[in-house]
Amino acid sequence: MSTQPERAGLEASRLITVLANELKPVPPPQELRFGQSMTDHMLFASYDPVNGWSAPEIKPYGPFTLEPNSSCFQYGTSAFEGMKAYVGPDGEPRLFRPEMNIARFARSAARMSLPPFNPDELLKLIKALVAVEKRWIPAGKGYSLYIRPMIVAIGLLTSNTALLWVMCAPTGPYLKGGSQALSLLAMRDTVRAWPGGTGEYKVACNYGPTINPVQAALDKGYDQTLWLLGDKITEAGVMNVFIVLKRDDGGIDLITPPLDGTILPGVTRDSILALAAAHPARMTLPGLAPTTLLHPSERTMTMTELQAWLAEGRLLEMFSVGTAVVVQPIGNIGYDGKDIALPTFEGGRGPVGQALYERLTDIQDGRFEWEGWSVRCED
Amino acid sequence: MSTQPERAGLEASRLITVLANELKPVPPPQELRFGQSMTDHMLFASYDPVNGWSAPEIKPYGPFTLEPNSSCFQYGTSAFEGMKAYVGPDGEPRLFRPEMNIARFARSAARMSLPPFNPDELLKLIKALVAVEKRWIPAGKGYSLYIRPMIVAIGLLTSNTALLWVMCAPTGPYLKGGSQALSLLAMRDTVRAWPGGTGEYKVACNYGPTINPVQAALDKGYDQTLWLLGDKITEAGVMNVFIVLKRDDGGIDLITPPLDGTILPGVTRDSILALAAAHPARMTLPGLAPTTLLHPSERTMTMTELQAWLAEGRLLEMFSVGTAVVVQPIGNIGYDGKDIALPTFEGGRGPVGQALYERLTDIQDGRFEWEGWSVRCED
Repeated sequence: MSTQPERAGLEASRLITVLANELKPVPPPQELRFGQSMTDHMLFASYDPVNGWSAPEIKPYGPFTLEPNSSCFQYGTSAFEGMKAYVGPDGEPRLFRPEMNIARFARSAARMSLPPFNPDELLKLIKALVAVEKRWIPAGKGYSLYIRPMIVAIGLLTSNTALLWVMCAPTGPYLKGGSQALSLLAMRDTVRAWPGGTGEYKVACNYGPTINPVQAALDKGYDQTLWLLGDKITEAGVMNVFIVLKRDDGGIDLITPPLDGTILPGVTRDSILALAAAHPARMTLPGLAPTTLLHPSERTMTMTELQAWLAEGRLLEMFSVGTAVVVQPIGNIGYDGKDIALPTFEGGRGPVGQALYERLTDIQDGRFEWEGWSVRCED
Repeated sequence: MSTQPERAGLEASRLITVLANELKPVPPPQELRFGQSMTDHMLFASYDPVNGWSAPEIKPYGPFTLEPNSSCFQYGTSAFEGMKAYVGPDGEPRLFRPEMNIARFARSAARMSLPPFNPDELLKLIKALVAVEKRWIPAGKGYSLYIRPMIVAIGLLTSNTALLWVMCAPTGPYLKGGSQALSLLAMRDTVRAWPGGTGEYKVACNYGPTINPVQAALDKGYDQTLWLLGDKITEAGVMNVFIVLKRDDGGIDLITPPLDGTILPGVTRDSILALAAAHPARMTLPGLAPTTLLHPSERTMTMTELQAWLAEGRLLEMFSVGTAVVVQPIGNIGYDGKDIALPTFEGGRGPVGQALYERLTDIQDGRFEWEGWSVRCED
């Protein structure tokens, strides 16, 4: 269209900040429930196909008005992200590999036909928001400020009018039991993602259909679902999955399903693979012997294989990973009416999961410098 | 929960009607664009898990305010329906088999973990809304009032707080070209629905992911997509599909994919199957000889079969059906880089499609009484 070049981009330099007159009390860390206490402010911008992006605003968190025929209600046209800000020993707010989340956010938005934005500008804006909300970031291991960027189509189907906002909520450990091993119910009848579907994008449409099956798992006494595609293991709840296997050569395989379109390309997933690959040649993982060779790989894993590995005594650990949980051990899988008990460990995680958890949270909190993954919000 | 019995149901007897002070001008029928001119009023009710359903209201159509962390934005938790009101020769507004839409609406809502409602009460309320908006129903074949019931989760994921509303827009023939034959692009890479997915429900999540592939089809000069699952034909755009085949015994097969979980159980689909089964024993379809025996059936159909039927000269007609289009002929399928030309007919529809279209619209408009399918809004 001829108007395209004149449309404004999302520009951090146009940021308008209007602070709340009255600030809310920050709840004590132990009272935090995941994503339930929104901070004082949000980042907000709107897009229309004539003018492009509005000047972004940091403004008091609050409701907005939408037309009843907005396409997001009818067609689920929305994409989102989940990322975290941390405060480390220096008291400075930090983000963890935020460019990966923002790049995925842009891909998810494009998949849902939502308007494009400049990822670098959005990162600058998120840093500005986190700097404003710094007092909300709880200190302490397992605590952080959860950051939820969203982009949602409003107006009619073809209008390409959208709202983008970023909201924040302080958060403690994701699961009540801390690092206790999860008991998962493997789902055969409900399929989270399929070839040609949207499983590799972080779009609203992947989540609504999972609410009922997750509730069914809870009702049966499980903590979460294990998503299957036929016999293939794909994800656990909203997390990627890893299996740790003993090798014949004394080393350890660390495997996770490949990014075949049905798997969310998780930032934690990618980080786990990278950290495992770095041990021990480039860095020793805490608590793991430098002589223990880790062999990370992306490969298909099936329930049949899982049971065989278990029977052979090769399956050492299974865990799920994600921004919310970081590394969460899996101790049991309900499958075809029986429970498959996996190796469990005092304190929760097995040695490989624990080593990766420690190193990852050290990097996130700014206690260990690694490849620029932990990014300061204030220069 | 102990509070459950005290929660209010959706009750038509509690309806509060507040009419708009100023009514909008009704656009001339020829200027109507599908779903773009909302009428003066909407039906509205809200649900919370403590109080249940609010007293339903008919009130001026207008925006509402939502919290940025409403679950519909993050998880696509919404379901909807598409139905139509017609005015026939008697000038009375009518609905077409509305109980089927409302039953599907309740099933879709339940699939998305949205609160339950009494379908009979919702039907009473929709009739009341249509009666209020009677002046908006355009007269004439192919014209009607499109009715969009919606139910959307607001609030936090687990809060089960929801809004239900019904909005209306006058509408003319769905596709600009009237009954001209559609040219469809068969989609291999993007899959609309999958076993274990939500294809059989009318939920927002089924639609957002189709916007890009539909645009890709339009960009290549096609009118719509033909959805495949592997080699299987499933749906066309947002429509069910039928193929008409010549039988060796001189009769005619009318086939459509079975409701295996990947197919929306369309009201028009069901009506077409029923009308075909009634011909000629119980009723003669207009323009079809009583000696022409129709054999409707639900069976899997593949692209391989379609091409074989075409080569054998057995494929007489292919058409798509739905509330919006009623019966729309399909004249071409782009598949694996080539175009498959289907039989086309002067005026658009072939004899079987035309006969079914005529009888169905006669029933919808109240010109032909059939099994109580056309339901008056005012008693």
